[in-house]
This record gives sequence, structure tokens and C-alpha cells, in this order.
Amino acid sequence: MAVIGSASCSPEISELAEQVGRQIARRGAVLVCGGRGGVMEAACRGAKAEGGTTVGILPGMDRQEANAYVDIPVVTGLGEARNAIVVRTADAVIAVSGGYGTLSEIGLALKMGRPVVGLGTWELGQQGQSVAGVVQAGTPGQAVAQAFALAGTGAAPVEVERDG
Amino acid sequence: MAVIGSASCSPEISELAEQVGRQIARRGAVLVCGGRGGVMEAACRGAKAEGGTTVGILPGMDRQEANAYVDIPVVTGLGEARNAIVVRTADAVIAVSGGYGTLSEIGLALKMGRPVVGLGTWELGQQGQSVAGVVQAGTPGQAVAQAFALAGTGAAPVEVERDG
Amino acid sequence: MAVIGSASCSPEISELAEQVGRQIARRGAVLVCGGRGGVMEAACRGAKAEGGTTVGILPGMDRQEANAYVDIPVVTGLGEARNAIVVRTADAVIAVSGGYGTLSEIGLALKMGRPVVGLGTWELGQQGQSVAGVVQAGTPGQAVAQAFALAGTGAAPVEVERDG
Amino acid sequence: MAVIGSASCSPEISELAEQVGRQIARRGAVLVCGGRGGVMEAACRGAKAEGGTTVGILPGMDRQEANAYVDIPVVTGLGEARNAIVVRTADAVIAVSGGYGTLSEIGLALKMGRPVVGLGTWELGQQGQSVAGVVQAGTPGQAVAQAFALAGTGAAPVEVERDG
Repeated sequence: MAVIGSASCSPEISELAEQVGRQIARRGAVLVCGGRGGVMEAACRGAKAEGGTTVGILPGMDRQEANAYVDIPVVTGLGEARNAIVVRTADAVIAVSGGYGTLSEIGLALKMGRPVVGLGTWELGQQGQSVAGVVQAGTPGQAVAQAFALAGTGAAPVEVERDG
Repeated sequence: MAVIGSASCSPEISELAEQVGRQIARRGAVLVCGGRGGVMEAACRGAKAEGGTTVGILPGMDRQEANAYVDIPVVTGLGEARNAIVVRTADAVIAVSGGYGTLSEIGLALKMGRPVVGLGTWELGQQGQSVAGVVQAGTPGQAVAQAFALAGTGAAPVEVERDG
Repeated sequence: MAVIGSASCSPEISELAEQVGRQIARRGAVLVCGGRGGVMEAACRGAKAEGGTTVGILPGMDRQEANAYVDIPVVTGLGEARNAIVVRTADAVIAVSGGYGTLSEIGLALKMGRPVVGLGTWELGQQGQSVAGVVQAGTPGQAVAQAFALAGTGAAPVEVERDG
Repeated sequence: MAVIGSASCSPEISELAEQVGRQIARRGAVLVCGGRGGVMEAACRGAKAEGGTTVGILPGMDRQEANAYVDIPVVTGLGEARNAIVVRTADAVIAVSGGYGTLSEIGLALKMGRPVVGLGTWELGQQGQSVAGVVQAGTPGQAVAQAFALAGTGAAPVEVERDG
């Protein structure tokens, strides 16, 4: 299960991410993320507090870049291209708030057929109409429950036109 | 200048993309894209009609994947991770309609500080508020003019919180 | 500690790789590899027999590609470009026999300053002279001992001219 | 046609690489390389002297990294992982001298079935026996002639055991 979000965030967002991490670990799943600070660190901290396992897919060339709660740092050296690996490695993705890097991961996940559940994250539209690619959840518990439910289906909940 | 969009599209979208390609070539810029069909092919066809040069950054392992109007096929074998190269290679990005792959490229471009101009593409929001990361244009001519103007600045027009 | 080698191999090579995996696990290190069959599978099997942890950096788009002894499959979708991640993620690399993919990993590791210890693997030369980039070991035990000793130094044992 | 070699080199090696670049351009092929200095720059300079076209697949995040003779800089941001793209984009590869990065490209090319012709480059062996994966040429003219001949066959001249 992947958790995506910004490398710096407010205490409120951090608390949400930590709760998401805790609940992923309680369900016995490995937590995959980008391995850095902010939302990623908070989610890893939560997972470790519950005895879970955390994987950090790092963009840079040095494992020192990983936050202190990453068990398995994967040092890609790929920069932003590593975002594709974060989402491909997971069965489903939970986005907690997030900036443009998170937006790219949402796009990649939905393109690859990985379900995305959001907590206060990006809202998408085209032609003035909302596009329901991200399943919006109200609480960390709901987000994790929905992500696990959708992961079982192996498909993104909504499709849009095929692209390249 | 990059053009991004779906690998299959309607005749109307195709016509817009071809006009974008024509105008990029008339300004003497190299057109960079994902090298496949739909919007990418139409943009390349437009650029070639004006004597331009086209580069296709392909996801697969075979140059046969390139559309017939790609001069320089770059065969990455990286799958969706190649999206990061398409946008990093350009000074600015023009998104014509598009699906989730295009959404990921918009996110990657804005994360890397590449300006993005849109023609009927994704509209972004957070917390019920519109986020103005993509400069929405009304016509191919306006889109190309804005993209060249913004490319000179070397920065995305709007910033959101830093992520990882 | 990374173990690299072919996806199919003889029973003798498999036995060497399994011993390498066992000894890495006994030293408490995480075993990183390409996650597939042959040498990779044997090394993972050895590590798991000793209670170790195994990470498989897969080239394809599906975790089903991982051998049965991989604890943490990382699904890159990058094809051969994933070789760079295997060696960058480790402090040192042990090559057991191997074909051209292994050769590429030896080159990448030495370029990145990761020490490489070999067991019946590639021998390198230029201008009719042997180049000592790979530390050749005689037994699995010697290979693992040397790899851990060199990992502490953080540098490849021999340098050749800088390249691109 | 790809040319690979070190980012810094002697005047003699530079002269060989320039001749290789000239002859590739005379045959009307696009020259693909890593886009940086040394062998790459000399080959591009040669190709441009004959009116050829040059593509530089750059490892970093900035096109300023390209040498002055690159027509089409492709900015990958992938670090050494970009080596896989250099060789996958070409039908055949000519290695001029070279260090460990070049060694990795030789391995990747042979793994992908791209023929490799060498000029004073790496010599390979296993178990004390020479392995003839790289076709060794004596002059730039011979190297280019052999590379074009082999490119037509679409297969590496020698196979070793399959790896991962």
C-alpha cells in the first residue's frame, strides 16, 4: 500500500498521514512511499509505531535522504521518474494532501490501473465537470479501508480516454 | 516545446493538436512528445507540414512504436516513467485534452518548474478551490504564444507546497 | 548487499549463490537483487533459510515476476534500466558468474563507486592488460567477507578514466 | 548509431572518436550518445563537421550539460540509468576506449541484442577464456563499417547465458 504526499506539511496533515500509516501496518501490509519527509515521514512513523514494515523509494543518489522510519531504502537516482516506481509497486495508493509531485503520482497510478484514495488531496476536472478518478475519503480510517477494498479489485474505479 | 495528450483522440482534438504542432514549427522550435498516436501524432504531423523537427520519447522497447511523423525516436524502455523525460526535455509544455498519463505529465512539469499551458485539458483543485497551475488557453495560437512567453521565464506560474 | 547474476544457471552456480545468500543473512544485512530466477532466486533462498530479508528490484510491470523468496518486490517497469537501482541501493555487490546483464551491473557499480566482488564472473581487460576492477574471490565465504570489508570503505578498489 | 566512451579522454582517443563521428554522418545516420564531453563531444564534433545530426541523452537535469555539438539534447534526469536509453535507441554501438560507464553500456547493449564494435575498448573474459561479445576493430573506418554491417542483422554476434 503506497502513501503519497508532500515532503513538508502542516502538523494537521502530518497527523492524518501518521494515522494512515498506523492503520496500514495494523492490517499487515507493507507501506511503500517516496521515503522522504513530511507526509512520507509521518506515514512511516505511524507504521513503525504499530510494528509495520516501510519501504522508501528515494529520488536521489544517497540513502541518507531517507527519513528515520524507512526500513528498506531503495536508492533510485532517477529524480522525479521514481514516482512511477512508488505507485507501480503498490496495489493501491492513498494520497494525503500533496503538491505537484503527488499530482503526478495520482496520474501515474490511475494510468496504471492502481486505485487512488484521497484525503484532502487534488480534485480533478475536465470541461468544467468533476472527474471521479480519486476516491475522496473523510478520515484516515475510511481512506485505508477504501484503499484495501479497492486494491482487491485490481482496477482504477473510473476510466478516462486512453493516452500515451 | 513539449506537446502532451492522449494516444487516441477525436478528430476535433486531433485538429487542435495539429495546429499546435504547426505553430511550434513555425516558431523554429523542436517539438518533443511521447512519440505515439492521437494527440502526439497530430502534433508531429503539423510540425512536419511546416518543416519542423520532431522528437518522440517512446515508452516501449521498439522504435516501431513511433508515429510516422517522428524524426528522432528515443527508445526508453521505461514505460510510464518516460513521462518525466518528455517534460524535463522541454522549456514548456502544451497539454491538449488528455487522460491520466497527461495528468501525470502536468504534475511532473509543474514540479520541475516547467510552465504548462492547456487546451481543454485537466482542471485542478484542492479543498474545493481551483488551483491555477495550468494556464488555460482558448485556441492553439494562444496556447503556443503563451507557452513560448512562459518558457522564457523558466518557472512555473504558480507554486503549491513542496513535495517529495 | 547486492547479489547479481544470471536468471538461469547451472546447479553448481546455484549452490554458490545460495551460500552467498546464507552468509549475507547471517551477517544481518538485507539482500538486494534483481528479484528473478537463477542466481537471484538461489541467493534469496539462502538468505531466507537463515532468516534474512530479501528485496527484489524487478524489471517488469508485475510483482508475479519475483521469485518465491523475495520479501519486498519493487516493481520498476524500467526494463534493464533497473540494473542501476540494484547496484545503487547496495553498499557493495557480489557477482556470481553472470551474462551481459551482470556485466552491465558490474560497470554501473564500479562507476558509482560500489565495490564489486566476483565468484567466477567477468574478467576485464584493456589493451591486452587485465583491469582489476572486480575483486575475484575463491569461495562464497571469501566473497561475502571481502564484500563486507570493502563496503566499509565506500569506494571501488580501482579507478579507471572518468566517463560519461 | 550510438558512440560511447569516456567524458574525458586523451587527444589521440578524441581524434579516433571524431573520425567515427564523421563517418557515421557521411553514411547519413543520426549519431546518438550520452551528450557530454570527451569521446562524446569529439564524435558529435565530427558528425557536425559532415553535416550530420546528433542526439545527446543526458544524465542530469539541465541541458547546459550537453556539449556544444549536440543538436537534440534529451534531458533525462536519470543519472547512470540513462545508459540503457543510449544503447536502446541505437541499432548498433561503437565503443571508443572508455571507463566503467562505457563497460555498463557494452553490457546493456549486448543484453538487448545490440551489436557492439570496439576501438581500444574493454576486452571481456570468463574463466580465463576471452569472450567475443565486442567486435574489435582496428581503425575508425573499420569500426563504422562493421557497426553498420552488424546493425542490419539486428542481433548481437555472440550470446552468453541469459541473465536477469
